[in-house]
Amino acid sequence: MTIVYFAMLCGVIAVLYGFVTAQQVIRAPAGNAKMQDIAAAIQEGAKAYLGRQYTAIGIVGAIVAVILLPTLGIYSTIGFLIGAVLSGVAGYVGMNISVRANVRTAEAARTSLQGGLTLAFRSGAITGMLVAGLGLLSIAGIFWYLVAVAGDAPNGRRVIDTLTALAFGASLISIFARLGGGIFTKAADVGADLVGKVEAGIPEDDPRNPAVIADNVGDNVGDCAGMAADLFETYVVTLGLTMVSIALLVRAPTEQLLALMALPLLVGGVCILTSIIGTYMVRLGSSQSIMGALYKGFWTTILLSVPAIYGATAYVLGDLRAVIGGAGFLDPGTDGLTTEATLGSEAIGGMAFTGMDLFWCMMIGLAVTGLLVWITEYYTGTNHRPVRSIAKASETGHGTNVIQGLAISLESTALPTLVIVVAVVAAYQFAGIIGVAFAATSLLAVAGMVVALDAYGPVTDNAGGIAEMAGLPDDVRQRTDALDAVGNTTKAVTKGYAIGSAALAALVLFGAYTTDLREFFPELTVDFSLSNPYVIVGLLLGALLPYLFGAFGMTAVGRAAGAVVKDVREQFASNPGIMLGTSRPDYARTVDIVTKAAIREMIVPSLLPVLSPVAVYFIVTAVAGQEQGFAALGAMLLGVIVSGLFVAISMTSGGGAWDNAKKYIEDGNHGGKGSEAHKAAVTGDTVGDPYKDTAGPAVNPMIKITNIVALLLLAALAG
Amino acid sequence: MTIVYFAMLCGVIAVLYGFVTAQQVIRAPAGNAKMQDIAAAIQEGAKAYLGRQYTAIGIVGAIVAVILLPTLGIYSTIGFLIGAVLSGVAGYVGMNISVRANVRTAEAARTSLQGGLTLAFRSGAITGMLVAGLGLLSIAGIFWYLVAVAGDAPNGRRVIDTLTALAFGASLISIFARLGGGIFTKAADVGADLVGKVEAGIPEDDPRNPAVIADNVGDNVGDCAGMAADLFETYVVTLGLTMVSIALLVRAPTEQLLALMALPLLVGGVCILTSIIGTYMVRLGSSQSIMGALYKGFWTTILLSVPAIYGATAYVLGDLRAVIGGAGFLDPGTDGLTTEATLGSEAIGGMAFTGMDLFWCMMIGLAVTGLLVWITEYYTGTNHRPVRSIAKASETGHGTNVIQGLAISLESTALPTLVIVVAVVAAYQFAGIIGVAFAATSLLAVAGMVVALDAYGPVTDNAGGIAEMAGLPDDVRQRTDALDAVGNTTKAVTKGYAIGSAALAALVLFGAYTTDLREFFPELTVDFSLSNPYVIVGLLLGALLPYLFGAFGMTAVGRAAGAVVKDVREQFASNPGIMLGTSRPDYARTVDIVTKAAIREMIVPSLLPVLSPVAVYFIVTAVAGQEQGFAALGAMLLGVIVSGLFVAISMTSGGGAWDNAKKYIEDGNHGGKGSEAHKAAVTGDTVGDPYKDTAGPAVNPMIKITNIVALLLLAALAG
Repeated sequence: MTIVYFAMLCGVIAVLYGFVTAQQVIRAPAGNAKMQDIAAAIQEGAKAYLGRQYTAIGIVGAIVAVILLPTLGIYSTIGFLIGAVLSGVAGYVGMNISVRANVRTAEAARTSLQGGLTLAFRSGAITGMLVAGLGLLSIAGIFWYLVAVAGDAPNGRRVIDTLTALAFGASLISIFARLGGGIFTKAADVGADLVGKVEAGIPEDDPRNPAVIADNVGDNVGDCAGMAADLFETYVVTLGLTMVSIALLVRAPTEQLLALMALPLLVGGVCILTSIIGTYMVRLGSSQSIMGALYKGFWTTILLSVPAIYGATAYVLGDLRAVIGGAGFLDPGTDGLTTEATLGSEAIGGMAFTGMDLFWCMMIGLAVTGLLVWITEYYTGTNHRPVRSIAKASETGHGTNVIQGLAISLESTALPTLVIVVAVVAAYQFAGIIGVAFAATSLLAVAGMVVALDAYGPVTDNAGGIAEMAGLPDDVRQRTDALDAVGNTTKAVTKGYAIGSAALAALVLFGAYTTDLREFFPELTVDFSLSNPYVIVGLLLGALLPYLFGAFGMTAVGRAAGAVVKDVREQFASNPGIMLGTSRPDYARTVDIVTKAAIREMIVPSLLPVLSPVAVYFIVTAVAGQEQGFAALGAMLLGVIVSGLFVAISMTSGGGAWDNAKKYIEDGNHGGKGSEAHKAAVTGDTVGDPYKDTAGPAVNPMIKITNIVALLLLAALAG
Repeated sequence: MTIVYFAMLCGVIAVLYGFVTAQQVIRAPAGNAKMQDIAAAIQEGAKAYLGRQYTAIGIVGAIVAVILLPTLGIYSTIGFLIGAVLSGVAGYVGMNISVRANVRTAEAARTSLQGGLTLAFRSGAITGMLVAGLGLLSIAGIFWYLVAVAGDAPNGRRVIDTLTALAFGASLISIFARLGGGIFTKAADVGADLVGKVEAGIPEDDPRNPAVIADNVGDNVGDCAGMAADLFETYVVTLGLTMVSIALLVRAPTEQLLALMALPLLVGGVCILTSIIGTYMVRLGSSQSIMGALYKGFWTTILLSVPAIYGATAYVLGDLRAVIGGAGFLDPGTDGLTTEATLGSEAIGGMAFTGMDLFWCMMIGLAVTGLLVWITEYYTGTNHRPVRSIAKASETGHGTNVIQGLAISLESTALPTLVIVVAVVAAYQFAGIIGVAFAATSLLAVAGMVVALDAYGPVTDNAGGIAEMAGLPDDVRQRTDALDAVGNTTKAVTKGYAIGSAALAALVLFGAYTTDLREFFPELTVDFSLSNPYVIVGLLLGALLPYLFGAFGMTAVGRAAGAVVKDVREQFASNPGIMLGTSRPDYARTVDIVTKAAIREMIVPSLLPVLSPVAVYFIVTAVAGQEQGFAALGAMLLGVIVSGLFVAISMTSGGGAWDNAKKYIEDGNHGGKGSEAHKAAVTGDTVGDPYKDTAGPAVNPMIKITNIVALLLLAALAG
């Protein structure tokens, strides 16, 4: 339990870091009255939106809790509520810092680039540490309570069920937050651009545009709050389900099992410490490269995590060469479930692994993190072929810009897929499915740093908007623009990272599903072979989900943006003083319209992954019996990742590339701002907006929800 | 053998129909000298392109034949060559009729809409009947020769191998033809639009545009020759592999086996007859609805096919209630391969089926055909929500047009997937995997009619171009435009139909793969369970292929279109008389440039599905042993369809919807031609071009190639 206490301590340190750093941020000068006025409007809008969003989600959550209580019991319900509340808290607090840091970043950028960078990054780091800290605290706390206080066995059913329910709570909130926030931010962004830039011919972030505050609010509720909820979910699901799969799959003495289950917690803990150290390394060098400064922090964290993880593993497991598990690892089972194959008993010779094997698996996780960051930067950075090819294609018009962007978005799936495939094979060779779980754990352990990089983005985006609206000098806007361009890449990085972890987690989740199935329904012979047509049916229906979900997301943005356009046109028509600059537009009215639209639009698509697994199970069971129902449901879980991985990566990388192709042209290439190429690039950017910020990122929580609902359905059917 | 003779007779009738109808088309008046002059330029360009394309393909084909001869023997090599040559012949002859029918359709449209419709549709019907007739003749001919002349058992290895090689030849040619033709047609189309409409401000099909002939050539080499080669491949693969899977899976007396294997041939034969009758029903009613006229022909064929298939099944199998196969159907096998599950021994009670079961499976196939046509028309027709929503979104600009188009393309995958899933389950309930194969067979049996509807499209497209270039009166152009708008929908229909059949065929192909594996490597225990990580690896790598292939296709069009733009700009600059209309542009030079670009660009992407299965097998085998190599390869075959189905449907339906949204606006909605909405719709149309005519349709042969290469690899490794 010392290990668990230490992990909880690290979680507390992360929260404390957030608290202390928040004080620093808030103490920074908040600019002149006009800037504070604008910032207040953004704060107000963001609070109003999140308040309403969480009310709506709260109602759904309460209904789900009422369903859970009789079906899965009090512990699962409490676990669900903790996950749901903390996911909301991570997003809410992150957003609250972000809407205070934006104006202070703009003020700091008046003096120096370093000042702006420090403030924006610190603000992002608060969100990052909160995500990791609260995530770790919730998992470790539940484990500690059930094992140390309530006296459960570490692999007891209640531990497994409560951790699964925790993950469900986090996932359910995060899909709403991701999708609702994503619809809000892009509806406001696209709407503001359409009436502002295109119809009225006023620049971006012009205070005369009634949608301009809504646009800035969107950055905070989508890119900050929604993202934080999403990454909290990813963290909890990955670490929690690593523990669950150890509990389900490893047969070892209680002592050893306890140690093995505590290892992910400790790894999470030490990586919080390395992430905190990393945040202090973010400094501009002589080259004044912002990306370079952020990379310094990132690579410091990654490199320090290598010895930290080694030390943690050695401390927890003692002798790193000692064999864990061994031949009696799993009762082979003659019930038709290929659990032997799950653990690859033959493939890796007796299925015993050592601490050293696990260490290498975690190194694979860190390597995947580094590679995914590098690949995403290649596909979305302005220095490389993909973005430049889109910029060049813009010369020949809107159509060729979009064609090239789509080609890049399709292409961008290849390298991440290969990295994930190699990682799965390598981790599996070391320690079977448990090895894959540990690779996913170390990948997520550095989430604090990765989220910090991402949450930095909306702050700089807002800072630029405030500088523009408050009429600050051009050099300030130049500094905030430089900060913001890097933000486009870091935002894409987190999305690729989250979906990459989902692909690794998919195997682990499927392992949990088959093991649960075997435990709950020992009398059934479920055939998960690809020769079973119900497996194909499940794969196809699972693969359909990201497409349908993407279609809903894109349509929702289109519809909500249309509402914005209508409102702004009405404001311009009824109050001509707005365009003349003599009277102030009714910002709150537009915020209110987007709020209502986003909340209305997020409900149905979010329920798709919750209800689909249940529907597939019951329909197939009715047609072909329970065994085929479970087969189709299991296959659906893999179908959703097999297609979701590609849909999500193509959308997020493609969208980032379109955005930066526009920025690249605005930097004076291919004719620069105002040229025909620029107009084409603006079209591409608009297309990429809902791709990268609404539909694409929400695929990640969607995949997880589908999987967890299946696990809960199993438990409910058995109970 | 009487049945086989009758099937061959039907094949001959189809070819004769083509010959006779071709005489009728050629005898029709070919218009004035100017029209003939233009048509001659198109003919010349199309011939020059196809000549070069087939030379390039011929070299690849010869290399493959040289590899096949020592590895798989003389019969497989001959089968490969027959498939390759006939696939080429179907495309070549179809194109030759098409480039003669175009000018005659324009001439006929001078007098009446009915005249133009009859000529264009007759020309399409020639291609359709050739595809079905040559396909049937080749399969029946090989079967007849080996069984009746060479004395092989109907399920002898040589029959299986030669039919598989026949399918491989057809597939290999068709992927090159589809992709090369697709790149040609869209590079010319996009390039011509970019310099013509956008830069020079001249209308579509203006004779001053040097790329205008290349654009019209493209319709013939892409939409006609490429499509015909593709559908020939689909026909041969589906019917041929239905026979192969009967040979591999059904254990019955030779007499019964022979009858069962001849049934797909007879069904193909009688459906050629119903298709021919259907072609005579295409007549405008009092409503003058062109789509209605085409539907009359289509539904006549479908409805007549119901009794025809019933009669054929009853004739071949005698008593429709007698049980075929039965309990001794398959030796259960204890070697780990779940072949029992393949046949669903438990699910359908002893795995016996009756003739009536097969009849119902074939009715399912016809129902799928009808439903896919109806769904495609819903998503791409101008009368329904999807196209209209894109047209409406065009009002707010290029960006919202593309966003809505992408949303529709994602959404359009849902209904076809559900139809396919239900069809798989239903056919499986009737007769297991053999039932699914028969559903695919009846789906493809009416290919003659479906291809006729499609091949009608490029003829009317060309007729419109010729009318414009020859300066025919406006009412002629109006008639050809009306014919062409319907062509956009019928072209989308065939693509959805082809990919739908691929999804049904996937299960059958996987069944053939597992059975072959078991026969060739009885000592191996290959685990195709989803719990095996190498299965996940195979699924992910398979799912990647359509994305990478799509990226290559889209990029190729972009690059080749860029070459067209450059050439046209040079021609305008060096010869100012072109724009004044005083001197004739060098059409042949542009055709030549597109030809070279298309052939260069088609090679690498086409080799992707040929080489990937081989690479995956050898790499995974090197890492984890042969059993896992076969597991990953098998999973790859399903991964490619699980993602390819969605990529292909979203691209082809989305592209068709974009195209018709533009047409809908041009009909005077949302501001009509020249409005801002129209400009946005032109962008959407441009984006949809490579989606629907290059990348999307080529996914179908790509999926088949991957599967067939895997089957051949198995045979080569065993031999």
